[in-house]
Amino acid sequence: MTLLASTLQNISPQNAEARHRARTRLEMLTMPYWALGRIMDLAEELAGMTGSLHPPVARKTVITMAADHGITAQGVSKYPREVTAQMVYNFVQGGAAINALARLAGAQVLVVDMGVAGDLSALAKEGKIISKRIGAGTKDMTTGPAMTHEEAVRSIEAGIEVALSLSDSTDIIGTGEMGIGNTTSSSALVSVFSGTSVAEVTGRGTGIDEEQYQRKVRMIEKALAINRPDPDDPLDVLTKVGGFEIGGIAGLILGAASLKKPVLVDGFISTAGALIAAHLAPKARDYMIASHRSMESGHRIALACLGKKPLLDLDLRLGEGTGAALAMHLVEAAVRILTEVATFEEAAVSKADP
Amino acid sequence: MTLLASTLQNISPQNAEARHRARTRLEMLTMPYWALGRIMDLAEELAGMTGSLHPPVARKTVITMAADHGITAQGVSKYPREVTAQMVYNFVQGGAAINALARLAGAQVLVVDMGVAGDLSALAKEGKIISKRIGAGTKDMTTGPAMTHEEAVRSIEAGIEVALSLSDSTDIIGTGEMGIGNTTSSSALVSVFSGTSVAEVTGRGTGIDEEQYQRKVRMIEKALAINRPDPDDPLDVLTKVGGFEIGGIAGLILGAASLKKPVLVDGFISTAGALIAAHLAPKARDYMIASHRSMESGHRIALACLGKKPLLDLDLRLGEGTGAALAMHLVEAAVRILTEVATFEEAAVSKADP
Repeated sequence: MTLLASTLQNISPQNAEARHRARTRLEMLTMPYWALGRIMDLAEELAGMTGSLHPPVARKTVITMAADHGITAQGVSKYPREVTAQMVYNFVQGGAAINALARLAGAQVLVVDMGVAGDLSALAKEGKIISKRIGAGTKDMTTGPAMTHEEAVRSIEAGIEVALSLSDSTDIIGTGEMGIGNTTSSSALVSVFSGTSVAEVTGRGTGIDEEQYQRKVRMIEKALAINRPDPDDPLDVLTKVGGFEIGGIAGLILGAASLKKPVLVDGFISTAGALIAAHLAPKARDYMIASHRSMESGHRIALACLGKKPLLDLDLRLGEGTGAALAMHLVEAAVRILTEVATFEEAAVSKADP
Repeated sequence: MTLLASTLQNISPQNAEARHRARTRLEMLTMPYWALGRIMDLAEELAGMTGSLHPPVARKTVITMAADHGITAQGVSKYPREVTAQMVYNFVQGGAAINALARLAGAQVLVVDMGVAGDLSALAKEGKIISKRIGAGTKDMTTGPAMTHEEAVRSIEAGIEVALSLSDSTDIIGTGEMGIGNTTSSSALVSVFSGTSVAEVTGRGTGIDEEQYQRKVRMIEKALAINRPDPDDPLDVLTKVGGFEIGGIAGLILGAASLKKPVLVDGFISTAGALIAAHLAPKARDYMIASHRSMESGHRIALACLGKKPLLDLDLRLGEGTGAALAMHLVEAAVRILTEVATFEEAAVSKADP
């Protein structure tokens, strides 16, 4: 059996009994009923995911997957393609936003080369990044499929391998990415999965102007017209309009779900990856936490399609895993509420009038 | 000059130059323009408040002010009045939600008795709480003013004293409260300051049913009809329909603003206190950060009236300072972004196409 097939088989629903026991305790805490709202929802989810009333979340990893996109040849981004590789160096040097926010969260950052156009072999040799490169960036999806079917499967399996390698060392995973052009690919993916028009799911990415925006929409429409991805076949969609890092994120999520570990899904591109994972294994959603709603206009639609309500809404549009890193604090808060707050009985506090 | 008068005189606007320098640096960071949205807005605010490009935020204090309300005699709450004192014991023992979330945030919790009906003198003697009691709870505002004008001034000055006592030991203050009946008082305050009908600003508090809710609205309407607070005189409003802990919170905020320290305003009741502070000193708003939007229906109106957009929106409705404690992480995140992220030049990353 392939790694992908066995991983899909290993994904089972949340532990209903642990959820129930967590809910019972949360309802007895010294506060009005469910007065911490979504923090308590999250605590119940974490108990269900981990099967524990003390969900372990101390050991945290953000995985930032980098890759390039052939579509950048069509002028869809404000930044040149080489920024992808340059930002990988910035991640390795600790100078990027994800490094700062991961340090604050007490999370390690793992950078994975999923297929950056530049040569990152020196960094890989020094052990500063993980190399899972599928190729030197995808092909231009306006002229044919972004990748082969085999590359699509390999990109997902690479993500699974990274998740499985963290099995004994990490409690919670945050997804992240870097790839000039990847909002274009993600808009295409979200358009296909949600059945929404390209214009509705396409945003300004890194900050393009109106003319570039119109061009971006036309290029995505062209890619979809030429490739005709099958919305019922997630591997076909990834093959035709996806990206290596997006396949990798889908794999990370599937791997985390198979390990029964919570996975914090970052922004728009990560949610596109999560949609692939959810189409391959609907039960994988049981382990996904939507970190935030980004400024990118299609993210709202992508989250609705995934059936997830985000924790934060702070006009972020950076990616890298920054939203996931920020939301890790709320995950810890949920665990603290479940494990550290006294019940009415323990604290001898009078209950509400019947 | 009274402490209140001198404090009001000591409140000056944010440091425009520090704001400008912070913005200039934030615009050069290795990311698309302002790609961390509200985290970057917050970083600019913090620089303006503290006058520093390295805003100090490491030493954190949540101040939970407790008091009772005479209006509870009218059956406006689901919980009996003695819960206020019982919860103070829970805070002191470390078993409440605010204790758990403050521990996670690395914040100390200071509990202040602003006027709890029960006897807490033993806790005060042991130094476990700070006693600033104005009286054994307010009077029933449906039959006359909740407190005297002198008590209103003293409650605000007590909050100022607590803030000033932290001058050398705390960088950032979070407000919090405990007081059965205090959403009723807060709804009255917000109705007066916003000019909105009582029904619109009144919510379910700790979880009352429809009949109790209708009663709560009627009691607030009665209190406003009998007392006729003057919306242009914040001390008159506090006197007639306020609470000792709400005056205390107004004072905390004024004190923090006079020290140029950021103050995280918690939920509905804290925002009612913030409105009193803002009416006494409009410039105090320069130092307020709205932590979250609570489930309590009037909070949206109160925040709009204050002119603040909340950081979090997690269906919280607990108070105690829990939302302020949760938002402290975002404040630290903003500082990390300002101080730890490399600029394009430092990291040798290509800029956007012109």
